[in-house]
Amino acid sequence: MEPRQAALQAAFTRTRRQSLALAEGLSAEDCMLQSMPDASPVKWHLAHVTWFFETFVLAQREPPPAPFNPAFKVLFNSYYVGVGERHPRPERGLLSRPSLDEVLAYRRAVDAQMAALLADTPLPHSLLDLIELGIHHEQQHQELVLTDLKHHFWRNPLRPAYRPPEPLEPADPVPLRYQAFEGGLVEIGHDGEGFAFDNETPRHRVFLEPFELACRPVSNRDYLAFIADGGYDRPELWLSDGWDTCQREGWFAPLYWQFTDADRWTVFTLHGQQPLRLNEPVCHVSYYEAEAYARWAGARLPTEQEWECAAQRWPAEAAPAPGRFADAGAYHPGPTTTGKPVHWLGDVWEWTQSAYLPYPGYRPADGAVGEYNGKFMINQMVLRGGSCATPSDHIRASYRNFFPPSARWQFSGIRLAR
Amino acid sequence: MEPRQAALQAAFTRTRRQSLALAEGLSAEDCMLQSMPDASPVKWHLAHVTWFFETFVLAQREPPPAPFNPAFKVLFNSYYVGVGERHPRPERGLLSRPSLDEVLAYRRAVDAQMAALLADTPLPHSLLDLIELGIHHEQQHQELVLTDLKHHFWRNPLRPAYRPPEPLEPADPVPLRYQAFEGGLVEIGHDGEGFAFDNETPRHRVFLEPFELACRPVSNRDYLAFIADGGYDRPELWLSDGWDTCQREGWFAPLYWQFTDADRWTVFTLHGQQPLRLNEPVCHVSYYEAEAYARWAGARLPTEQEWECAAQRWPAEAAPAPGRFADAGAYHPGPTTTGKPVHWLGDVWEWTQSAYLPYPGYRPADGAVGEYNGKFMINQMVLRGGSCATPSDHIRASYRNFFPPSARWQFSGIRLAR
Amino acid sequence: MEPRQAALQAAFTRTRRQSLALAEGLSAEDCMLQSMPDASPVKWHLAHVTWFFETFVLAQREPPPAPFNPAFKVLFNSYYVGVGERHPRPERGLLSRPSLDEVLAYRRAVDAQMAALLADTPLPHSLLDLIELGIHHEQQHQELVLTDLKHHFWRNPLRPAYRPPEPLEPADPVPLRYQAFEGGLVEIGHDGEGFAFDNETPRHRVFLEPFELACRPVSNRDYLAFIADGGYDRPELWLSDGWDTCQREGWFAPLYWQFTDADRWTVFTLHGQQPLRLNEPVCHVSYYEAEAYARWAGARLPTEQEWECAAQRWPAEAAPAPGRFADAGAYHPGPTTTGKPVHWLGDVWEWTQSAYLPYPGYRPADGAVGEYNGKFMINQMVLRGGSCATPSDHIRASYRNFFPPSARWQFSGIRLAR
Amino acid sequence: MEPRQAALQAAFTRTRRQSLALAEGLSAEDCMLQSMPDASPVKWHLAHVTWFFETFVLAQREPPPAPFNPAFKVLFNSYYVGVGERHPRPERGLLSRPSLDEVLAYRRAVDAQMAALLADTPLPHSLLDLIELGIHHEQQHQELVLTDLKHHFWRNPLRPAYRPPEPLEPADPVPLRYQAFEGGLVEIGHDGEGFAFDNETPRHRVFLEPFELACRPVSNRDYLAFIADGGYDRPELWLSDGWDTCQREGWFAPLYWQFTDADRWTVFTLHGQQPLRLNEPVCHVSYYEAEAYARWAGARLPTEQEWECAAQRWPAEAAPAPGRFADAGAYHPGPTTTGKPVHWLGDVWEWTQSAYLPYPGYRPADGAVGEYNGKFMINQMVLRGGSCATPSDHIRASYRNFFPPSARWQFSGIRLAR
Repeated sequence: MEPRQAALQAAFTRTRRQSLALAEGLSAEDCMLQSMPDASPVKWHLAHVTWFFETFVLAQREPPPAPFNPAFKVLFNSYYVGVGERHPRPERGLLSRPSLDEVLAYRRAVDAQMAALLADTPLPHSLLDLIELGIHHEQQHQELVLTDLKHHFWRNPLRPAYRPPEPLEPADPVPLRYQAFEGGLVEIGHDGEGFAFDNETPRHRVFLEPFELACRPVSNRDYLAFIADGGYDRPELWLSDGWDTCQREGWFAPLYWQFTDADRWTVFTLHGQQPLRLNEPVCHVSYYEAEAYARWAGARLPTEQEWECAAQRWPAEAAPAPGRFADAGAYHPGPTTTGKPVHWLGDVWEWTQSAYLPYPGYRPADGAVGEYNGKFMINQMVLRGGSCATPSDHIRASYRNFFPPSARWQFSGIRLAR
Repeated sequence: MEPRQAALQAAFTRTRRQSLALAEGLSAEDCMLQSMPDASPVKWHLAHVTWFFETFVLAQREPPPAPFNPAFKVLFNSYYVGVGERHPRPERGLLSRPSLDEVLAYRRAVDAQMAALLADTPLPHSLLDLIELGIHHEQQHQELVLTDLKHHFWRNPLRPAYRPPEPLEPADPVPLRYQAFEGGLVEIGHDGEGFAFDNETPRHRVFLEPFELACRPVSNRDYLAFIADGGYDRPELWLSDGWDTCQREGWFAPLYWQFTDADRWTVFTLHGQQPLRLNEPVCHVSYYEAEAYARWAGARLPTEQEWECAAQRWPAEAAPAPGRFADAGAYHPGPTTTGKPVHWLGDVWEWTQSAYLPYPGYRPADGAVGEYNGKFMINQMVLRGGSCATPSDHIRASYRNFFPPSARWQFSGIRLAR
Repeated sequence: MEPRQAALQAAFTRTRRQSLALAEGLSAEDCMLQSMPDASPVKWHLAHVTWFFETFVLAQREPPPAPFNPAFKVLFNSYYVGVGERHPRPERGLLSRPSLDEVLAYRRAVDAQMAALLADTPLPHSLLDLIELGIHHEQQHQELVLTDLKHHFWRNPLRPAYRPPEPLEPADPVPLRYQAFEGGLVEIGHDGEGFAFDNETPRHRVFLEPFELACRPVSNRDYLAFIADGGYDRPELWLSDGWDTCQREGWFAPLYWQFTDADRWTVFTLHGQQPLRLNEPVCHVSYYEAEAYARWAGARLPTEQEWECAAQRWPAEAAPAPGRFADAGAYHPGPTTTGKPVHWLGDVWEWTQSAYLPYPGYRPADGAVGEYNGKFMINQMVLRGGSCATPSDHIRASYRNFFPPSARWQFSGIRLAR
Repeated sequence: MEPRQAALQAAFTRTRRQSLALAEGLSAEDCMLQSMPDASPVKWHLAHVTWFFETFVLAQREPPPAPFNPAFKVLFNSYYVGVGERHPRPERGLLSRPSLDEVLAYRRAVDAQMAALLADTPLPHSLLDLIELGIHHEQQHQELVLTDLKHHFWRNPLRPAYRPPEPLEPADPVPLRYQAFEGGLVEIGHDGEGFAFDNETPRHRVFLEPFELACRPVSNRDYLAFIADGGYDRPELWLSDGWDTCQREGWFAPLYWQFTDADRWTVFTLHGQQPLRLNEPVCHVSYYEAEAYARWAGARLPTEQEWECAAQRWPAEAAPAPGRFADAGAYHPGPTTTGKPVHWLGDVWEWTQSAYLPYPGYRPADGAVGEYNGKFMINQMVLRGGSCATPSDHIRASYRNFFPPSARWQFSGIRLAR
């Protein structure tokens, strides 16, 4: 077998297992929750990533195998118009049938077919590309399983804990320092080593003015100062749409924060309701809040080009060890050696001030799989860096995450630039 | 033990068992479905009726027993402001916790306490009244379990069947005849025999002009003629609000009807997708549709007073046998002897042209339980007669059901008057 | 000429003039205002009542005369589906063309044709009936001109005054006494003397239990006690839909009330912003507020049958003198002699607890004019008595006004019963 | 007097006169129309631009003069939070008072004060800057007067014409050719000559790959081919948000297009309803439509940097003659000489694929006037080039216009790039 096929075989097995590990401890009822149209049930995620392999890999074979269940073609199609009809997104929580057990059987059936395929004679590169895409697609949904589940559970007044609380060492506060970068004509985009989504390509040149980037994300302690200074009551700090959203939604702090009777802030986490840890990166803020915070702090958000330029220079060891599954919502004590960034990768996604738009010369893939990224290039802002909920081998310097500026349920935080 | 207490003891046991029987065959996932704010999950119904006994009966004892779970006080309070906070109705489907198993344990715990109480020394009448109210309350929710579940399942494109299809004898069409009533000064309202809700009281006199009532409800066959005659396209047949609703919602037939490729109508039932049975009463129509149909047919809907006046005269044997649980959504072949009504009780609720308002001298009960009926006396129309989903011993001549004029998910049909 | 035709000729002239008098002092800009979909511009009212005569009277002639402007057939059709398309109600304020001047020319043209018709040979009764209907129709819109204009002006922070303030004698408070009525079998509905709308017919018998009616409406002073007692903060006083509306809309007092810095209430009136007069009838309350007030006061609202029964007995002299145009929003000092009602007619419309439904045997007129009343018989409550904005010769005992229970922009108040 | 002050004096007078010229022929009723929250009444525009001079220039003097009317501070504040409260934007059409006459008097009063000020001793540069800003601000609103009025009138079924139709020479179709640009490191942003808004600064370097730009905008003829090819029915051509918007809004052609019985397209223009001119630039398309069209055509939209790079090279004579007021909605026959662009400036605003974001180093002005541009830098796309409704001396290469991607009521069209 070719080395690439063998590597994908291993990655496939590992990734599929990891998805099941995420669902451990959840009941069938838990896996059906849908708290808002943007957040899908865990059961749906488990089925959809399976549908992806069935639709884009298995069904491409000649002759195509019989589908596990023909109805799944519609039920678990997320947004691929080229594949046909889709079950409406806000109604994913109304599917008590198929049951979680049936979805797990669906996974096993597709896994078996995939295993047979991958153990087979060498597969063409085009098919290996789709399998690789499917693996990275499933990793994306692993993060969504966690972000969505957190939101689902938060709507239950019982505030269930997904995982038991893990007492963490209190981290010492790290002073906020800026690191200077020269800018100039730099190359941005995926360099061709390993996998990348189409939206990271083509690699291209951009011209950057000199800039500085903060050595760590904004912490909860920093953010409390913004709140205490009336941050949520001063329209002059906000973008106009941001202020309107803030007023309409009644925002007064990041999502999941709660001010308790005892004059203390607590936060809802995947480990249940917890006291706020002051030295952790602030999390679950919208772009609007990030942008307002930066203005208040006399700084700004980085562009995605600045961010990637820095990522090319800053050491990879700042990233969490590959294969380690990060504690959801918790804190990675990064290296604190002077001059090196802390919490650089794998803590919180960092909002950039770049709109999510195609790179010069961008071309989506042919066929339905071309809908993966390109058709969402409007009304969204780019986030960089990966979060504690991102599989650590899914994080890379050129990775472009994107969400609307009002989104708060992702593990999104703030890194300042100037 | 006093006979009344003994009778309630038996009724309590029977009713509680019947609720569980309704949930048989449903998974925990099925029991969590909430397809719209008006329709609650089966699990919530099972818990709420239990909460009713715990709150209004058990908690009245001195000293009050410890609650099964203090959080349930809020979670399973439907609308009793006097009891305190309520979990928001549209979010009942977001409660994966407590699990169905915990809710069943809750039922067992309350049942045990109730059994002990009822086996005890003679209870005061005021407490027996509340127990009796709780039993009838649970019977109301038994019907809602079925109407709500039907709606939940209908939103799933797999169209699950709650119960296997039961082939029914094709019923012969019954000609539509009218029966004349003299009217005059008649007495309306509960006569004091057996249980009644407060909204059926006080008994009082009304003056009725002579009227005629159809001997059977409008059938699917009748209603198809209305559709074929452009009933859904002719605003002159409709109330103004009805026409607006019809246009906005895109109504073209009763709820659950579907026009299939093969030029035939099918309907979604609790037994799955079925062909339309022409001689059955038309079901799942709103007041607007019922009223438009009546206008088209050159007739009108009865008032609730006319309906009750007829019910006092028509024989009780027209009702389904007590204790028999009607097939949900199906058809009761009633007596067809000339001069006797068919499908009089227990097929479909019959919309009347009476608004749901207090009877002269109406007084709700004291305390939170007084919120049971009175505070809903606006913007709703009265339905009479009981449906195939109503427990047969819950049907009586003076019973006042009520829903907004746009509601279609109840087993609601049409009886003509003139 | 027949006496009836001569009388209608005079009434037509008088009524048409009265409409123009209402528009005196308003600019073309004022006449175009539309502050909400329910409230139409003055210009639209002036045109629509003219359209009524053109459509239902002039266009019935053979051969029909050329329309003044063919586009008006659609623009000024309110809701008559039988006549054809209608310009959308919420967009009536977007018609800068035709200008007010053109609408006034339209009025003159139709008036001239109507004058010629009425001076002609004796007209058939069916046509005289339509002319009479058109006159009463225009009187209804005269009241709407005032209620709508008040709402339009209130949305302007400059708070324009329609008419200069008229200092009124302070009225002495009148003690709230109840008058007893025996009830029994009484006749309700129009008795055939003079004009009536179809919804007041047919006259029919109803049986009433003995009841009492308050001798005057609830005053602002009375209502302030309700507010002071937490009336707007106590859900147990409200119907469920009423409480939801109150919360959603942020009600804290009747419409147009404002709490000023100086610890005093003021109200916006057609005479501008004014201090609250304590002894005037409370006005601009919804049915929900009226019903909650009555519950708080230990009383209830009358049914429309009780109200009409009392109106048949109470003296006509309690009504304002015919032909006198009431000061909009102001107070009629009525007779205060003990034992006689005060403010019985012509102060505020009084909410009854009766839903607006057809009388037994009700039949709307044939043709499009049959849409006048019948198709609105749902989701509305009946008001009785006429207001200070009602032309005084438009008030009668059998008159049924109707609005949804949430409506507050009419001159609507409260009379208690028990 | 300093030359700059003299030049501003002349520009002030000319600009103020031009605004009044735009309102000629409109009635007070026309000037009050507000067809949607985004489009303001003409009267409001006339007052708001006056308020700008009163607030940011006159009120800065020491001692500040008495305001013309203190209420105007709130009524005519558009969005300057730093100035204080604002009248709600959707309610601008509810202001019958102040009348148009009062607003014109307001203009005269402020003009007189401004004239005195400008004729005075040399003014400080900071004040001259604000006066210059006010002049350009008023020019922006001159375009909005036309775009908004077009929308207001279009909602009237009478389809009023703002100006009489002017028969234009039929233009010959110009073949669509592309012009190549080398790109490289280019300078973008205002170069300091003459006035610019803050969002055009600072001038900065960007790196561009080689690109090509079409020599003319997409014509109606081109766009009809897109429609005929199912452009509005093929989701694969659209951005996801674009397709959702298209479906929700029922788009089937650009705004103002109407398919008439006679198998022909007509368009609503400021000259009334007109046949579609095939060789004119397509207008009133959203970003979504522009982007879908480009995809269909195998091309793309330019970035704003590419556009400006081309504008620096293409000859200024392609622009309409300064001082000439373009026919609203009509067509400028530009130079057709081979190798030169046609309709380059002053026909339609051209959507770029650039999000409206701050240039590197952007700093808004201090004080309330700093809210002019910066706070809108989210959720909008940049348009370039000026339209037939833009005052011709208001058009420049570095000008950045911006609207949300769904906006269609501006004079917005399409230029292709590749």
